[in-house]
Amino acid sequence: MMEIKLNTEDIEAMDRDQRRNFVNTLSGIKNVQLLGTQSAEGIDNLGLFNSVVHIGAAPACLGFIMRTLTVERHTYNNLKKTGYFTLNQVHQGILEQAHQASAKYPSGVSEFEAVGLQVQRTSNVQAPYVKEAKIKIGLAFHEEHYIQINHSWLVVGRIVEVLLPDGSIGPTGHVDTAAWDGIGVSGLDTYYNLEQKQQLPYARP
Amino acid sequence: MMEIKLNTEDIEAMDRDQRRNFVNTLSGIKNVQLLGTQSAEGIDNLGLFNSVVHIGAAPACLGFIMRTLTVERHTYNNLKKTGYFTLNQVHQGILEQAHQASAKYPSGVSEFEAVGLQVQRTSNVQAPYVKEAKIKIGLAFHEEHYIQINHSWLVVGRIVEVLLPDGSIGPTGHVDTAAWDGIGVSGLDTYYNLEQKQQLPYARP
Repeated sequence: MMEIKLNTEDIEAMDRDQRRNFVNTLSGIKNVQLLGTQSAEGIDNLGLFNSVVHIGAAPACLGFIMRTLTVERHTYNNLKKTGYFTLNQVHQGILEQAHQASAKYPSGVSEFEAVGLQVQRTSNVQAPYVKEAKIKIGLAFHEEHYIQINHSWLVVGRIVEVLLPDGSIGPTGHVDTAAWDGIGVSGLDTYYNLEQKQQLPYARP
Repeated sequence: MMEIKLNTEDIEAMDRDQRRNFVNTLSGIKNVQLLGTQSAEGIDNLGLFNSVVHIGAAPACLGFIMRTLTVERHTYNNLKKTGYFTLNQVHQGILEQAHQASAKYPSGVSEFEAVGLQVQRTSNVQAPYVKEAKIKIGLAFHEEHYIQINHSWLVVGRIVEVLLPDGSIGPTGHVDTAAWDGIGVSGLDTYYNLEQKQQLPYARP
């Protein structure tokens, strides 16, 4: 295997689309989630995110990276206003609708209607869930961090509730994403099926 | 499909291992990387991370979540001291060694030797690469953010160089992780093979 080396100048010399695809696919597989919020006017918003990251289990919390506020303004304004958002794991059965939710719809349009997904509500979380999703997480906004290098944000939420299929939590607490048709994404557009390979024991020196 | 709902109290009532597995697997698939650093004394350090997140393509940068400094002290001290770290994407051929690198080795022990992986160096980055990896990224520390909810950190690095197999970058800039035996992880111990399913066009309303 012949190895090549690209430095900063080589990456900057790529055209815009090439560079976006290259850097976005470089870190490997990512999970893909529909993020639901509700506006002050009661309009349900959905966005597609591939940057959800585990923050901690006690308290149970997750984060995600949000691009500049000019790009993801609806999601940001809504979750700051209501204090809530939902993460709905994309599976094979809703992939096309989920990908379509990444289109830039104007204010006043609910992506649920635009892409053909149903709203599900609970009393604890002031944000819409995607009914067709199988693993759904309701979160309360906890904190945000401004990332100087490119004016993006890390948003951290505390898990308030989890909706998932009866029987999906194994005796050790594991949820097997592949068993529920979970998928992964590399970059912004390339989706992967998952197949469980192996579970390894806790490593000791 | 019967749906169940867990609230904060239900999650807190799980035993420690169950809760850790549950929350860690909840967000779906994640990439898995060996993070390389070098200490001031010249000892090469490797850690296993499943929290690498895309921050942006211009400038090209990535971030990762680091647990409290008591847990991941070597990695943190080294990268703050030298200003550099490497991300080496785990593939099927080095999975067992990579997982073993998550064990807590004492100071003064190089995980490279302990788990049986080879060091590769370049002149631009003062941190060791994993020679056996296929997709290797060298980064310069850029900024860090303290996450209040559980005293973890977001560390952001600027990509300085990328080492990868000749022919692995497609004409559109995509790197196909599955073609290079890339794998995913759910939680801390469950590994998945990847199979490319489909590439979808840029979504428009």
